[in-house]
Amino acid sequence: MALITGARITPVAFADPPLLNTVGVHQPFALRAIIQLDTEAGLVGLGETYADTRHLARLEAAAEAIVGLDVFALNVIRATIAQRLAGDDAAVGTAGMITSASAVDQVFSPFEVACLDVQGHLTGRPVSDLLGGKVRDDVPFSAYLFYKWAAHPGGEPDAWGEAVDPAGIVAQATRMIDEYGFTAIKLKGGVFPPDEEMKAIEALREAFPNHPLRLDPNAAWTPQTSVKVAAGLAGVLEYLEDPTPGLDGMAEVAAQSPMPLATNMCVVAFDQLAPSVAKDSVKVVLSDHHYWGGLHRSRLLAGICDTFGLGLSMHSNSHLGISLAAMVHLAGATPNLSYACDTHWPWKTEEVVKAGALEFRDGAVAVPTTPGLGVEIDDDALGALHEQYLRCGIRDRDDTGYMRSIHPEFENTKPRW
Amino acid sequence: MALITGARITPVAFADPPLLNTVGVHQPFALRAIIQLDTEAGLVGLGETYADTRHLARLEAAAEAIVGLDVFALNVIRATIAQRLAGDDAAVGTAGMITSASAVDQVFSPFEVACLDVQGHLTGRPVSDLLGGKVRDDVPFSAYLFYKWAAHPGGEPDAWGEAVDPAGIVAQATRMIDEYGFTAIKLKGGVFPPDEEMKAIEALREAFPNHPLRLDPNAAWTPQTSVKVAAGLAGVLEYLEDPTPGLDGMAEVAAQSPMPLATNMCVVAFDQLAPSVAKDSVKVVLSDHHYWGGLHRSRLLAGICDTFGLGLSMHSNSHLGISLAAMVHLAGATPNLSYACDTHWPWKTEEVVKAGALEFRDGAVAVPTTPGLGVEIDDDALGALHEQYLRCGIRDRDDTGYMRSIHPEFENTKPRW
Ligand SMILES: [Mg+2]
Ligand SMILES: [Mg+2]
Repeated sequence: MALITGARITPVAFADPPLLNTVGVHQPFALRAIIQLDTEAGLVGLGETYADTRHLARLEAAAEAIVGLDVFALNVIRATIAQRLAGDDAAVGTAGMITSASAVDQVFSPFEVACLDVQGHLTGRPVSDLLGGKVRDDVPFSAYLFYKWAAHPGGEPDAWGEAVDPAGIVAQATRMIDEYGFTAIKLKGGVFPPDEEMKAIEALREAFPNHPLRLDPNAAWTPQTSVKVAAGLAGVLEYLEDPTPGLDGMAEVAAQSPMPLATNMCVVAFDQLAPSVAKDSVKVVLSDHHYWGGLHRSRLLAGICDTFGLGLSMHSNSHLGISLAAMVHLAGATPNLSYACDTHWPWKTEEVVKAGALEFRDGAVAVPTTPGLGVEIDDDALGALHEQYLRCGIRDRDDTGYMRSIHPEFENTKPRW
Repeated sequence: MALITGARITPVAFADPPLLNTVGVHQPFALRAIIQLDTEAGLVGLGETYADTRHLARLEAAAEAIVGLDVFALNVIRATIAQRLAGDDAAVGTAGMITSASAVDQVFSPFEVACLDVQGHLTGRPVSDLLGGKVRDDVPFSAYLFYKWAAHPGGEPDAWGEAVDPAGIVAQATRMIDEYGFTAIKLKGGVFPPDEEMKAIEALREAFPNHPLRLDPNAAWTPQTSVKVAAGLAGVLEYLEDPTPGLDGMAEVAAQSPMPLATNMCVVAFDQLAPSVAKDSVKVVLSDHHYWGGLHRSRLLAGICDTFGLGLSMHSNSHLGISLAAMVHLAGATPNLSYACDTHWPWKTEEVVKAGALEFRDGAVAVPTTPGLGVEIDDDALGALHEQYLRCGIRDRDDTGYMRSIHPEFENTKPRW
């Protein structure tokens, strides 16, 4: 037995550039909670998740509830957390864009990852081996492009500069691909009128004729607009991600779209899969272990996609190295993950894990082969980012509020066009 | 690493009573193949599966193909077996009743179980811990009643005697429940006209007012007959199993049936799940790790059932102790397995594993807590049952041929009524 004796939950804040999306703009700091799960075996397992106020309170409650349970007792750990959170079911931590996820799965996830990390150390196995073993040595990721300002208001310009038009987006892509070698490209849309974003995609196609391209306006468009954009980008996009809100709207667009529709907004929990299949709303689901309930339940999602003829990709929020390690182990051990995964990695300048375990080469990260997740906490860095959390004053992600503090006229309308 | 160095595949035959079903009667011996998976770590993993000729050849081919792979590399082991069997896709080993299962999953299954057994020994963990941990200490089974003759023609009467009418079935149930404590009852039907089998169910209801009852005619009835029987047994049956063949026939009956329909015939492979969900053919799926591709893929099936609102039970063919151990670990670690599992255990008088690990108490078997599956081969018993296999002359299960050797006029008609 390796019984859980407690968990240290440390909220951290790391510098984040002013990345634009349809609900507003990224605040100067992104928040994450780092879980250090302690066991009587003396081993410590790592997990990483959102750090919004309500989520932190749930994490603390969950950590207390699972003391005394064995790190292999994942079924019981999840049931214990579900019981502890009964009735407290609103999802958190994604700027209001993923509102119908399961709170239980969001809270369970970092503890499950931490338990798998401990299991790996106990057994001398990388986490991928606990998920059926890796089927690829390297996990490909896509370049994640954002419209952005040159600097946060009042701040110094960041290293990336402004990107508010097709030329800026192509320049951003060029630099990111030069540096990381990404073999697929995703543009976060929903910021400018659809015509302008279509021009950016066309410019990317011209500059990168062989890179699969994706566009994700985060449900900023009506079904009618979505159908028009889809027709205009026929043969150009690998998939179109969440053009419009809801399973019915997506189904309406899907029936007329020349390319597959993908989602991490209308199918974000297990209870949305059956209606989505029945309505044929999407062809690709973006998994994300942070809200699908950890790595085993993300494998279940993968198996469901395989069984019901859905493609599988992987979603990302702003994250640090523990999450990247978990994503890489999961993706490495998921046979039907046929698309390059999303990551916000290049936008991040600060970290809590020791350098060296996770390197991008040709747009891919090698699955760590050391026991557990294969990453270690840098205590000084964790302390510093926790201090930054305490200092920065941000307690809940609020892209809309931050945008309105700069542009008071900004309205979070959806669909916008 | 714990690399596979080879596998010893031993076909065995064990005495089986003359149990009747709609395709004929059980032959005097049931066949199984025992897998002993050897590793460079010196550990041996156990698996158990069908032993029909074609299956044995596939097992040998698979065993050869996976030499050198790590016991944690389950994804790669399955892919390697799939590649080795490419194009060779007819299911085997179930008297012709489960013909649309996946040959790859049938062949992969015992190797997966054997790998998990080794993983358990390597990590000092029971197999249930490798499946997310047990959620129950004891796994309930149902009494599995059969119409039967007193003896195989020319043989000695067995201990159970004849059961060819309601009184015989009630007597059988009484004895079986006295001995094992089962808390649910299943009757294998499709043998006598439906009216007679309904009378047997009614007699069971009278004798055992609190036991959930199930009837399984193995698709012996037309949809019309099925609807009539279902109406006649309203409020009496927990579920009605495979009254009629095919997803469309089952859907027709399901729409008019007062009780849930269950299946281990029209949904026996992952590619049948989407059409079954679309047609609403069944409400309960009986899993069986022998053809669903092992324990992890049976957990995937469980997750799919949970996600799509289907109940989950567990199917059994005639089996020995390695299979029972695997079934118990799987059922123990499957939260939504809400029905008592099937087992042919009481009909078996011979065994290949050492006594003591698996005992029925109050109709349930405790999940073993020792490393791996928790069962050990009895070498003498294995040798004796292998000798019996060599002597008995049976090489492929053929309930129909055996019946016709006794009653040449027997026709395997489906649906029969
Ligand atoms: Mg998205
Ligand atoms: Mg059946």
